[in-house]
Amino acid sequence: MIKIAIDAMGGDFAPAAQVQGAVLALEKAKDFSVVLVGDEEKIRRELSGLKYDSSRVEIVHAPDVITNDDVPTKAVRTKRDSSTVVAFELLKEGRADALVSSGATGAVLTAAVLILGRIRGISRPALCPRIPNLRGTGTLLCDCGANLECKPVNLVHFAMMATAYAQAAYGMKSPKVGLLSNGTEDHKGDALHQESNALLRELSCIDYAGNVEGRDIMVGDVDIVVADGFTGNIALKSIEGCGKAISGIMKREFKKNLFSKLRAAIVYDVIKNIKKSADYETMGGAMFLGLKKAVVKAHGNSKPAGFAVCVGQAVDVVRGDMVGRIEKMLKIAQPEETAAPAEKAASGVSAPSEAAGPENEGGNA
Amino acid sequence: MIKIAIDAMGGDFAPAAQVQGAVLALEKAKDFSVVLVGDEEKIRRELSGLKYDSSRVEIVHAPDVITNDDVPTKAVRTKRDSSTVVAFELLKEGRADALVSSGATGAVLTAAVLILGRIRGISRPALCPRIPNLRGTGTLLCDCGANLECKPVNLVHFAMMATAYAQAAYGMKSPKVGLLSNGTEDHKGDALHQESNALLRELSCIDYAGNVEGRDIMVGDVDIVVADGFTGNIALKSIEGCGKAISGIMKREFKKNLFSKLRAAIVYDVIKNIKKSADYETMGGAMFLGLKKAVVKAHGNSKPAGFAVCVGQAVDVVRGDMVGRIEKMLKIAQPEETAAPAEKAASGVSAPSEAAGPENEGGNA
Repeated sequence: MIKIAIDAMGGDFAPAAQVQGAVLALEKAKDFSVVLVGDEEKIRRELSGLKYDSSRVEIVHAPDVITNDDVPTKAVRTKRDSSTVVAFELLKEGRADALVSSGATGAVLTAAVLILGRIRGISRPALCPRIPNLRGTGTLLCDCGANLECKPVNLVHFAMMATAYAQAAYGMKSPKVGLLSNGTEDHKGDALHQESNALLRELSCIDYAGNVEGRDIMVGDVDIVVADGFTGNIALKSIEGCGKAISGIMKREFKKNLFSKLRAAIVYDVIKNIKKSADYETMGGAMFLGLKKAVVKAHGNSKPAGFAVCVGQAVDVVRGDMVGRIEKMLKIAQPEETAAPAEKAASGVSAPSEAAGPENEGGNA
Repeated sequence: MIKIAIDAMGGDFAPAAQVQGAVLALEKAKDFSVVLVGDEEKIRRELSGLKYDSSRVEIVHAPDVITNDDVPTKAVRTKRDSSTVVAFELLKEGRADALVSSGATGAVLTAAVLILGRIRGISRPALCPRIPNLRGTGTLLCDCGANLECKPVNLVHFAMMATAYAQAAYGMKSPKVGLLSNGTEDHKGDALHQESNALLRELSCIDYAGNVEGRDIMVGDVDIVVADGFTGNIALKSIEGCGKAISGIMKREFKKNLFSKLRAAIVYDVIKNIKKSADYETMGGAMFLGLKKAVVKAHGNSKPAGFAVCVGQAVDVVRGDMVGRIEKMLKIAQPEETAAPAEKAASGVSAPSEAAGPENEGGNA
């Protein structure tokens, strides 16, 4: 049976949202169990009011918490009793198959690399959120902030890893991949993007559609948008801001006066559907790709329903063998550059935590 | 009297939208006149159905058109009878004070640099659209695609130029400036952004608020967001795509069935107000900053009302002495680097046209 480790103490509404979310997820599928990692007493208190199959819920005590105020690398090394560190240790020891955490992003990324470790051949794991799009299929944006400065080989890996993720979790046989640039023509972009575009064109294990623009993230026909972490982060947050602004404008206009308020009530269900279509909570968390096991970074302010989606996502990628698919693709593609830099970079484990601040939650509008 | 040159032949609905837009703008203020540049017969035909003060409208014949299919540098050198080239010649000769064009972006940027020329001390002119925001004040994003690769001094110039623009056109005494990065802390960003942030902190002629994130473009409290052209372009188009997607989702939900359609009619005016608040057409065109005179790049698919806003914008920055303000700021700030690289770069005039493709329309969602 698939076993999912839950970092129950990280996030704005921990452990309530995490425990309730895990139980919600258990109701939706029968082929997995969860290990709730955190303060045992608090977790038991949360569980006491819920109905669940106790044979599918295990608790591992970890009283400490890593917060957004902690320095990630230091916290991971010193807070050995924290829920995040203990949960990753379970993964490493083979006592769980995947992990879901809504804890501090920097700490999760750092613990993932330091404790769990990277897939051999991958030098730069990447954070990959799923963004709502007009088609309703969700667009994967990889990387959105784990790697500030990238080399072409990193972007090639992002494309392969996101492809494996889309195949394993969303059943896409041949997801279409685009490279985020300032125009669709091959000559667009700086040296990094031009070289990456050329390498991606040669890659046979992915379905590459060429350069795409920012607007294609939400209205285009690609399933995956590959970006360096800096650009991906700007795109993700620009979209987040746009969604917030439009939602704020809608609220303002519908609350303007009594007449508009009355009419808002009349179209309540339509507005609810619009919000749902554009809501990132329904999209799940950001997949942290390139690690030896699946790690889902849930939004820091996840509520039970949103967290349950993330748990389901973790189960899906284990079922679909995402990590195995990535390893297989690496073997097929095997660009000579892949192995060497990965080994060299193995000492620079603090890199992801530097680039991805606590605000890179991997969520969006 | 202020005189605005109108490139009447560029754009999807030329010359109708341009001629009608110019006449609309003339109705709104009395202190300026226009020079319509383009095919005289076609312009006269458009004018014949309109009511306007003929003493405020001049026509300069220019039969040729530069299209999106032309190579900008070549077209500007060979199509000497095109409306774009002739309009810029008028500016250069002092026969007009500012120019509005909805022609091919690459051609407009190239003609601006080649014919009109840069302000002394500015090596990289920048394209600066105004993006709707939650506060309703509009956020200036500078640069959004004219300069693919930037140096810190360029970003400093962008901040100064956009400040002068905000002061001249929108009466902001001390517009707040942010630098687009992947987090707000000073250590965020790559070398370019860290150095730029440090330089901007020392600049006394602007009100610098530090690093901002993508979401701050539409929901933050800065008036100006400074970005390298690549990142700015990604942000702008990501926002554009988000707006289009949400608008598409709204349309879909309200047209789902007869009941939702009926209710859409009931909230028609509210939806119209929401759209208006988020509509870039009401925001005007992108200001092309750093040239000896004001140049407004209107959206390629401008309609009369949107084009009229752009003409008004051109009048505003002439009235507010935007170019004089930029020159004054350069003298005050005078970082030693500014003069030399500008002169050196003077030969690289094709740069803007390379970076800003025909799709960098400077509009947004």
